[in-house]
Amino acid sequence: MSSDPMLWDQVWIDINIATMQADHSEPYGAIKDAALAVKGDKVVWVGARHALPKFDSLSTPIFRGRGGWITPGLIDAHTHLVFAGSRADEFEKRLQGASYQEIAQAGGGILSTVQACRHASESELFELGRQRLNALAREGVTTVEIKSGYGLDTATELKLLRVARALGEHHHVDVTTTFLGAHAFPAEYQDNPNGYVDLIVDEMLPAVITANLADAVDVFCESIAFDLQQTKRILQAAKAAGLGIKLHAEQLANLGGSELAAELKALSVDHLEYLDEAGVKALRQSGTCATLLPGAFYFLRETQLPPIDLLRQYQVPMVVASDFNPGSSPLCSSLLMLNMACTLMRLTPEEALCGMTRNAAKALGLEQTIGVIDVGMQADFCLWDIESPAALAYSYGVNPCQQVIKKGEIIPR
Amino acid sequence: MSSDPMLWDQVWIDINIATMQADHSEPYGAIKDAALAVKGDKVVWVGARHALPKFDSLSTPIFRGRGGWITPGLIDAHTHLVFAGSRADEFEKRLQGASYQEIAQAGGGILSTVQACRHASESELFELGRQRLNALAREGVTTVEIKSGYGLDTATELKLLRVARALGEHHHVDVTTTFLGAHAFPAEYQDNPNGYVDLIVDEMLPAVITANLADAVDVFCESIAFDLQQTKRILQAAKAAGLGIKLHAEQLANLGGSELAAELKALSVDHLEYLDEAGVKALRQSGTCATLLPGAFYFLRETQLPPIDLLRQYQVPMVVASDFNPGSSPLCSSLLMLNMACTLMRLTPEEALCGMTRNAAKALGLEQTIGVIDVGMQADFCLWDIESPAALAYSYGVNPCQQVIKKGEIIPR
Ligand SMILES: [Zn+2]
Ligand SMILES: [Zn+2]
Repeated sequence: MSSDPMLWDQVWIDINIATMQADHSEPYGAIKDAALAVKGDKVVWVGARHALPKFDSLSTPIFRGRGGWITPGLIDAHTHLVFAGSRADEFEKRLQGASYQEIAQAGGGILSTVQACRHASESELFELGRQRLNALAREGVTTVEIKSGYGLDTATELKLLRVARALGEHHHVDVTTTFLGAHAFPAEYQDNPNGYVDLIVDEMLPAVITANLADAVDVFCESIAFDLQQTKRILQAAKAAGLGIKLHAEQLANLGGSELAAELKALSVDHLEYLDEAGVKALRQSGTCATLLPGAFYFLRETQLPPIDLLRQYQVPMVVASDFNPGSSPLCSSLLMLNMACTLMRLTPEEALCGMTRNAAKALGLEQTIGVIDVGMQADFCLWDIESPAALAYSYGVNPCQQVIKKGEIIPR
Repeated sequence: MSSDPMLWDQVWIDINIATMQADHSEPYGAIKDAALAVKGDKVVWVGARHALPKFDSLSTPIFRGRGGWITPGLIDAHTHLVFAGSRADEFEKRLQGASYQEIAQAGGGILSTVQACRHASESELFELGRQRLNALAREGVTTVEIKSGYGLDTATELKLLRVARALGEHHHVDVTTTFLGAHAFPAEYQDNPNGYVDLIVDEMLPAVITANLADAVDVFCESIAFDLQQTKRILQAAKAAGLGIKLHAEQLANLGGSELAAELKALSVDHLEYLDEAGVKALRQSGTCATLLPGAFYFLRETQLPPIDLLRQYQVPMVVASDFNPGSSPLCSSLLMLNMACTLMRLTPEEALCGMTRNAAKALGLEQTIGVIDVGMQADFCLWDIESPAALAYSYGVNPCQQVIKKGEIIPR
């Protein structure tokens, strides 16, 4: 190594770092009294401050973190955040005692969101999505996955994905997109579900691929939605086209979706309340992530917890995501999800944070570039005014996010 | 009425109003397409826009609400928000499997907060409190109750109350203060609990009264804290001094605290998971409010719900508050409490909102000045970018608070 001073763009000192590196000996991959250097969009040095090499300290801006903690930028790996329409009235009616049937008859439920999305303009959807990304970004999120699935016809599914792509282009938060045409059966196909699967495979998916609108494909595999056979057709078509695959599975019962997804080397299976040991083993073998969605668990007042102990035992990477959506998780907050993952699902704060950083990156196929703080990784990180990383999951309300750095740039607040 | 134009300071139009008036025929006391006028610190006109009388529209600023909803400013009627120290490590240890005993031995639990508060300076406590008030204010809170109770010695209890008073003086949010010396037994009195009650009655309370530091007095009445007899001594002393009284009761078991509080005409009893019908009837008779604390219910993963149906049946005013505190409800958010009150406790959105407006004012003895929007009431209100008042409780994360008006002044953002 030369003894010439390093030429860096910016240096952080007076910080502690939760690197979240997997092979690190400290909890959180922590480095206390650390330093970190950025050049371009990359982290180029990270370590103990006393080991910081000589750098051109006259021309390199030095940011002092006043003893706060730096973590990787948070990653929300499962959202449905592009949608129009409010379901507040449905929420209110249900609390006033209306049955699901009465609500469906009054035009409520997922199909009301589908109606609203079909009628909404791209600019409306963009503005709604932008406000939601802002809310997540305020709490340190730097990458978000967004699913379609409120169109259920080709034109609207494409529209939702175009909006998601546009959000990623115009917002500092990076967006990965997932085609979820198989979210529910549209009214037009209630009596012909396989006809809708044909439409997905023969028309929607090719159109999505042609327009390069999706990074992955997802299916809602449940007794009330797509069965195993239908799920397999869709995921195989996606896989054949080279797209990543994901699955909503085992939320209401164990259909074996996770084993199917593992066979197909899915990036993640999500929800998983009813996952059994065979399913956990299958995930372990395929390296598929298990995405826990505490917001939906909370909002639906579920009592069946995902098999956290088994996931730990088999070292399946656990992801924590908001599942932000108008029907079952109208909670647009990353930090609240960390708290709910710990409070309701009994994850440790370290597991929860790992679920929104390193493991979340893996669930998006992005573990080579984001999710941990290390030399060569993209410089996506946050500075928090906290005394220990556990504080991110413990308390909620006073936002401790002091600074967000995305691709090496400090994001103006 | 004269036909001269009204001389007002500011007028709001293009709004809907959830007045929260008790005797109003519409849900939420709603007036659609409404107008509202303010003069000085009071609401001087409220009604349908078409009925708005002539006013000097050239010299009166007119604010257009773009179809949003105005509600009374939110009132968080039960908090412990002045404290120092973090309990994040304790949270983490518990999730890693440590027992309560191990945590107590490691210096955790409420007494760790007491230690931190005894050592903290007033300016530290003020700054921490200010950040928390800011978080609440951002979500539309205009009045907050703050309890002492992390001092457990005379000097520190007075210090905490002085900080709470100072916060009220320096922040636009109004603060009412409650002396909660009877929050727990300090280490010094573990073997002499009645000696601590003597200290409260003979020394702390007189000092609090002399310095005019408390608007009310509260006691934590539980098997693990103050028993009925001790509670009665303290509350009677407070009542004799003309202070309002409140009670933490029936959270872990039914000790009959609510009936005692009702006898003494308490403003509110709070928690109430184990309240029985006799207790509900007693509250009804005394006009005492029942304060529900969904944050603690959530964080402690309680399963016993307060008797909501009985409270409804006997028309006991239900209050919703954050109970923000480092041990059992580290959630500093008003809007999240509305969501939790509905999601976890099955209040309707209207009941929840009433619990943070009209009924919360009553729990603080302030129902003559705040909590509803009406002519002659203090002009404390918020403008929200929502389609219906239910939206405040339904979704969380994207803050819909557009504007806060406190005593007739628009608060700069
Ligand atoms: Zn989902
Ligand atoms: Zn309390």
